[in-house]
Amino acid sequence: MDGLSLTFLDAAAAEALSDERLLRAMARFEAALAQACARSGLICAGDAEVIAAVCKGARFDAGALASVGRTAGTLAIPFVKELTAQVAAVSPQAARHVHFGATSQDVQDTALALCLKDANARIDQCAVQLGDAAAALASEHADTPCLARTLLQPALPVPFGWKAAVWLSLVSGSLRAFRRSADECCVLQFGGPAGTLSAYGEKSTAAEAALAEALDLAVPDVPWHSRRDAIARFGAAAAALAGAAGKVARDVSLLMQPEIGEAAEAAGAGRGGSSSLPHKRNPAQCMLALEAAQRTPGLASTLLVQVTAEHERGLGQWQSQWMTLRDLLGATASALAAMGGVLAGLEVNTSAMRENIERMRGLVYSEALSVRLAAALGKQEAHHLTERLCARAVQSGGHLADVARADAQVMGAIHPDELSTIFQPQRCFGAAPAMIARARSQWARVRASAP
Amino acid sequence: MDGLSLTFLDAAAAEALSDERLLRAMARFEAALAQACARSGLICAGDAEVIAAVCKGARFDAGALASVGRTAGTLAIPFVKELTAQVAAVSPQAARHVHFGATSQDVQDTALALCLKDANARIDQCAVQLGDAAAALASEHADTPCLARTLLQPALPVPFGWKAAVWLSLVSGSLRAFRRSADECCVLQFGGPAGTLSAYGEKSTAAEAALAEALDLAVPDVPWHSRRDAIARFGAAAAALAGAAGKVARDVSLLMQPEIGEAAEAAGAGRGGSSSLPHKRNPAQCMLALEAAQRTPGLASTLLVQVTAEHERGLGQWQSQWMTLRDLLGATASALAAMGGVLAGLEVNTSAMRENIERMRGLVYSEALSVRLAAALGKQEAHHLTERLCARAVQSGGHLADVARADAQVMGAIHPDELSTIFQPQRCFGAAPAMIARARSQWARVRASAP
Amino acid sequence: MDGLSLTFLDAAAAEALSDERLLRAMARFEAALAQACARSGLICAGDAEVIAAVCKGARFDAGALASVGRTAGTLAIPFVKELTAQVAAVSPQAARHVHFGATSQDVQDTALALCLKDANARIDQCAVQLGDAAAALASEHADTPCLARTLLQPALPVPFGWKAAVWLSLVSGSLRAFRRSADECCVLQFGGPAGTLSAYGEKSTAAEAALAEALDLAVPDVPWHSRRDAIARFGAAAAALAGAAGKVARDVSLLMQPEIGEAAEAAGAGRGGSSSLPHKRNPAQCMLALEAAQRTPGLASTLLVQVTAEHERGLGQWQSQWMTLRDLLGATASALAAMGGVLAGLEVNTSAMRENIERMRGLVYSEALSVRLAAALGKQEAHHLTERLCARAVQSGGHLADVARADAQVMGAIHPDELSTIFQPQRCFGAAPAMIARARSQWARVRASAP
Amino acid sequence: MDGLSLTFLDAAAAEALSDERLLRAMARFEAALAQACARSGLICAGDAEVIAAVCKGARFDAGALASVGRTAGTLAIPFVKELTAQVAAVSPQAARHVHFGATSQDVQDTALALCLKDANARIDQCAVQLGDAAAALASEHADTPCLARTLLQPALPVPFGWKAAVWLSLVSGSLRAFRRSADECCVLQFGGPAGTLSAYGEKSTAAEAALAEALDLAVPDVPWHSRRDAIARFGAAAAALAGAAGKVARDVSLLMQPEIGEAAEAAGAGRGGSSSLPHKRNPAQCMLALEAAQRTPGLASTLLVQVTAEHERGLGQWQSQWMTLRDLLGATASALAAMGGVLAGLEVNTSAMRENIERMRGLVYSEALSVRLAAALGKQEAHHLTERLCARAVQSGGHLADVARADAQVMGAIHPDELSTIFQPQRCFGAAPAMIARARSQWARVRASAP
Repeated sequence: MDGLSLTFLDAAAAEALSDERLLRAMARFEAALAQACARSGLICAGDAEVIAAVCKGARFDAGALASVGRTAGTLAIPFVKELTAQVAAVSPQAARHVHFGATSQDVQDTALALCLKDANARIDQCAVQLGDAAAALASEHADTPCLARTLLQPALPVPFGWKAAVWLSLVSGSLRAFRRSADECCVLQFGGPAGTLSAYGEKSTAAEAALAEALDLAVPDVPWHSRRDAIARFGAAAAALAGAAGKVARDVSLLMQPEIGEAAEAAGAGRGGSSSLPHKRNPAQCMLALEAAQRTPGLASTLLVQVTAEHERGLGQWQSQWMTLRDLLGATASALAAMGGVLAGLEVNTSAMRENIERMRGLVYSEALSVRLAAALGKQEAHHLTERLCARAVQSGGHLADVARADAQVMGAIHPDELSTIFQPQRCFGAAPAMIARARSQWARVRASAP
Repeated sequence: MDGLSLTFLDAAAAEALSDERLLRAMARFEAALAQACARSGLICAGDAEVIAAVCKGARFDAGALASVGRTAGTLAIPFVKELTAQVAAVSPQAARHVHFGATSQDVQDTALALCLKDANARIDQCAVQLGDAAAALASEHADTPCLARTLLQPALPVPFGWKAAVWLSLVSGSLRAFRRSADECCVLQFGGPAGTLSAYGEKSTAAEAALAEALDLAVPDVPWHSRRDAIARFGAAAAALAGAAGKVARDVSLLMQPEIGEAAEAAGAGRGGSSSLPHKRNPAQCMLALEAAQRTPGLASTLLVQVTAEHERGLGQWQSQWMTLRDLLGATASALAAMGGVLAGLEVNTSAMRENIERMRGLVYSEALSVRLAAALGKQEAHHLTERLCARAVQSGGHLADVARADAQVMGAIHPDELSTIFQPQRCFGAAPAMIARARSQWARVRASAP
Repeated sequence: MDGLSLTFLDAAAAEALSDERLLRAMARFEAALAQACARSGLICAGDAEVIAAVCKGARFDAGALASVGRTAGTLAIPFVKELTAQVAAVSPQAARHVHFGATSQDVQDTALALCLKDANARIDQCAVQLGDAAAALASEHADTPCLARTLLQPALPVPFGWKAAVWLSLVSGSLRAFRRSADECCVLQFGGPAGTLSAYGEKSTAAEAALAEALDLAVPDVPWHSRRDAIARFGAAAAALAGAAGKVARDVSLLMQPEIGEAAEAAGAGRGGSSSLPHKRNPAQCMLALEAAQRTPGLASTLLVQVTAEHERGLGQWQSQWMTLRDLLGATASALAAMGGVLAGLEVNTSAMRENIERMRGLVYSEALSVRLAAALGKQEAHHLTERLCARAVQSGGHLADVARADAQVMGAIHPDELSTIFQPQRCFGAAPAMIARARSQWARVRASAP
Repeated sequence: MDGLSLTFLDAAAAEALSDERLLRAMARFEAALAQACARSGLICAGDAEVIAAVCKGARFDAGALASVGRTAGTLAIPFVKELTAQVAAVSPQAARHVHFGATSQDVQDTALALCLKDANARIDQCAVQLGDAAAALASEHADTPCLARTLLQPALPVPFGWKAAVWLSLVSGSLRAFRRSADECCVLQFGGPAGTLSAYGEKSTAAEAALAEALDLAVPDVPWHSRRDAIARFGAAAAALAGAAGKVARDVSLLMQPEIGEAAEAAGAGRGGSSSLPHKRNPAQCMLALEAAQRTPGLASTLLVQVTAEHERGLGQWQSQWMTLRDLLGATASALAAMGGVLAGLEVNTSAMRENIERMRGLVYSEALSVRLAAALGKQEAHHLTERLCARAVQSGGHLADVARADAQVMGAIHPDELSTIFQPQRCFGAAPAMIARARSQWARVRASAP
């Protein structure tokens, strides 16, 4: 994945899943396999050394492999053939033992797992940056009032830091779940043609353990040739993580509407300009994150439909999962990287936040008023009265506090002095400080348990 | 979900997610809320008792609620209105405090969480039955040879119990992950109109804790009004579990082809007959599982695209998740229940298994032969020779053992006595016994950690 | 689909796809089949009349059918059994011919097609209402300037009627395509157990034609037992239509943000209120449309994965398509009905539109300025100059026209009189009038070709 | 898309959608735009010629563009900048007019449309080859009896040519619909920054027409900047076409199971071998088709969720559709090409087909027997009797004809001579010949209307 596609993929994640890295990982599998076989006494140490050495320096023509692989139905067949030829050029004797006892899917899936680990490390790094930026905003703006908006309508004032804490919590939970899914997914694939390591006889579990150790991969209970559930959940966890970045992007892009103007991506050369409207300042990085958040669920659903693989190796499930994951993880990293940058450099306009609250002319304190009135009049009655007051304020263009002050029923229920205290943002913050603290603690735990 | 839809939904899971149960859970939330408010001193205990009592006996007209809810855009508005009226009929004073400080999504999502817990318990039960049945087959048939089939082609003999162990491992891993996702998803929703529990002031966290305790739900760091990642991953975990049942169904239905005939759903009155072909014996239960496995990924993808909710409450994400989950969990339970029954009563035809191996005329031992020859001739040469021998066997219709015995190069490499030992199923079992043991241990752990 | 689910489904569409209607359609198939057989001389006319009469009055217990159908793997088996019993109660002789030569899928898929036709009629009606409302807005506001917004940023003035014309065009194209897909999908299913009408011998095509005529359904080239492509495309066409409504909803809900305030759903009792914030005016109907637009793609993808059905009747594809379509079409109609109502009653705030343009202080005319400057200075230079002017305007808070007027380079290129004409909304309308006219003509054609 | 990804993409389709071709198409748009502007008198002819000439020879560094594009949020900005620089090197005067009045999405979407047309031509060609091969099989095997299989169970004999006619019909209908969707999707994108061609004033429609003519693209009623319905339906039509190939692959791979052995992919060097099992003959090409059929629905669903674009240009919808379509169309062509080859070279084993019918020992004629008995005994009674006869045949291992002959009730109802005529495959063919003829006629029409 290079060229233009890097507009919508994170380059580092794409690199981890590139042809070259996959082929290198396949060669690494074959090297480790030869050495594991040697350790188990199945082949002689000298041959294993030759194979490992050739694997280390082996180079492959991806296009040529794909072309043959297309006819063969699997990339591993031409790969093993080509590798064997390269080994044979050094030692025909050693070449006899290349890919010993393994099957196409062993090398392909294990290489996938190895590449995924690298891509995941990049995703983790990006997610941590995003989380850290959200955590910083949560602290810094713990007392900055801004409007909560529900169904795109102003609800009532909350700390902007609390809004950031919700983002943080989303990233935090999604990253933790992603790591867990990744652990279950990135394991050794090693089963031989039927999955039972038939060629290894009684040395099978020893060879398996040696190979796993060499590649630093866990051993699953059974091969996952046709057990594609872990990869399916992993894809969904990645999509949810991309969605987390997308949710932050959704919010920032909405806040960045000039009519609202409460926050904005940092400006800068080449950022968010328009090819035709020189005045525009586009939420360009948010757009990347939203693009990815819209693209990943479909890719994840591909993996979910592929759990029902036929017998011991399915028709079409595993073969393409590398392609799907390449797009999926590249997009996930793209979304996280984009929003990590956005939140780290977020321009927060606290006065716009305050003005937008003011512009609501007290209407956003209607719950506070209603709750206070309910103590005197009952909830239903208070709700109806507040509705009438709000309607009056909307119609007259006056401030709800003034409308309330002019209402006899209100004045019968609340003392004028108390009334004005209702119309203060901080009075609405409720559990926000506690929630911010909880989200930050949780983040500290997630950060501390990084793989 | 009743009537004809119960053909494709598990009745018990559908019941847990029925209108009646959702409304009851909503009432349960309101009762617990009133009591939590009373415990926090926000309303008086007597009013809370009245509310709780009315909630307990409250009955609702689902159709009428939906009709008003459609105009209002949320079911909770007519629900709260109706409940308040029912409380008011008992105590106008108490009615003032119904739904105190909460928002529509609080009652709706918490009720969803409560219903999900019940549905999940049913799913867990079905998955355990399926796992137990697979575990029993894994033990019972640990030595029964049958053909492994890769890409629908016979590969080589494996124990049928090992095949069952792969099923077991799939169920085992999927159930464990499902439980974990369920735990993260089924938590309290409580934030009030903006998510900050604004109406509760300094009593907010106490009220939150009291409510959570009353409902036996965990408290999340922040409300999940617009944090829909956990529900998205939960949906995917359910789809993967349905997929696990679907994979077992795929295999059983393929084994049940009369030309293969190695296993079959138990026969019985009304099972798998055809309306037009009296002789047919359809894999009717497998079909149910495959139906669900094909339907759940799309439903799960709906939840995955809904992570990017707008601000503090999104437009269209949470509103319908109950509908999607109803279908998704009903289908998941349907798949598991169907296959639990199938595996528990599976008719295993061990002689057909053996005959199908025999019918391959030794070709399925080609790997074993090739590996043995490789020791003498090198892998590539051995592979080519074995290919030639196989081609000869295919062409002549003879047994590979006989063809091998007639080949000079083979006879130069292997002693005739050794040759015959190669053509024995058990010789191919490799790590199968160890894998079966591992899958069964893992299952024991999963079983022991049932919620 | 009734009860609470009607919050998110259109009641009329849901009714068309209800259990009762499906069972009635199944009975209608059996009646027509008997009569077609009689016309072809396969059974005697008297028996056919009895069967048809019983079918007409037949009543079924959906729950009981589902329960047996779950064991049988198909609803049609208990249905036919029950119907046969009801016929036998009248005439054991006639009962011999119930379901003659047909297969389960014949009755089930044909009944699906019949129900779909009714549901589609409702969808068509809703789409026409939505299109009509958009067309009216396109006319009425052909000269009303409002801001176009790209990437949520103000671009430049367009007629609000042109914006409505884009909505219209979207509905128009989506409805036309939906109708076409519906025509291909709602056809007779009639093939008997293998699909070849084996029981009918040389009378097969005559019986087929008679049955199709009786049911007013087209005859496909071959039965679609395992040809599920048309249904897959139909689902996508429905999802796209729901998406069209969702796109209108997206725009209206964004315009309805009070900070923008250019348009709003009509207010009214029970519409868009909040359970906790009395002042709120939620885009409740937009929310319904967006909910549906987010739910339908996943449902449509289920149908897309089911094209690869096995042999002459697949495992799990057709069985559940009725469930998926019920949700999909109910949601599609829900979205269209909601937005038809919204556009028909849309409160358009033309002065807010004008104020929002003004608020941009001339920046939205930067393209017009840049184009005019380009004629004198070249495009790149003009772009850079305009960027500088815009930056100056943003920084100073002044109007771009004033900033331009104060710039020597501008004044060297443009005459002051000409400069002011640039800052007029209508000057930017370009092809908008022609586009509105084209969209309206196209709509007239689509309307005229209603089925 | 090159390198290893060509294992799972058709090279020709991937080439049509390659970076190089997209950039060339973007340059082609800019050239045609300049010339259309010149024809409309907006810029001078000489400048347009220079621009067109530079566009023709322009070369771009895809990686560099992507890198800048990622910051800018769109590829078109660095592209236009680079192109302008290349024009400026020839004529600074001409450079003033590059990209005149257009917007990023104009060049990007139009280039997409141009590339899609080439990719679609390849898909069409592959689909025609697949259809032709199916049509040939339908003719050639119009009288070859083979088993229909429903729910993977033998149903009754059908002509193998009829089975091919179902495949043909599937390809035929899917190709027709694909072409129609492609026509609606591959149209000019031209609207300028807001979509109204604001920079063109009264020359807007003339410029639009000139541009469309130059690029041989139709003009839509309104720009499709935020009207993404056509692309969504197009994606679904492609996925359904891939699904059609996948359905053929499903059937062939099932027929290729050695236990059934009725058809096989042509053997040949490098085709379908196994890396570890020399005797295997894998359905390698079917696997490619099934891979694609499983991957395309998720990709199509991405396009379906993107209809709800914001205002005049959405956040994240169009930006990535090129990536999604690249995978989607590459996979669709891959599936069709693979199966076109498979059907063209299909090895049909008519004797295996006959033997598999025989192996059913008459049970597959049970419907024929039941129908015949029903004439005498009534349908229910005949069904029950046939069930008993079948059970007896299954138990005894005898042929159903013999069991029937030994049954008194049967012999009382049918004359022995007539009985034997029931057990003939051709007797079951019913409408198959008519259906084959219809499918072939329809195919002739589809072929004749090739674009």
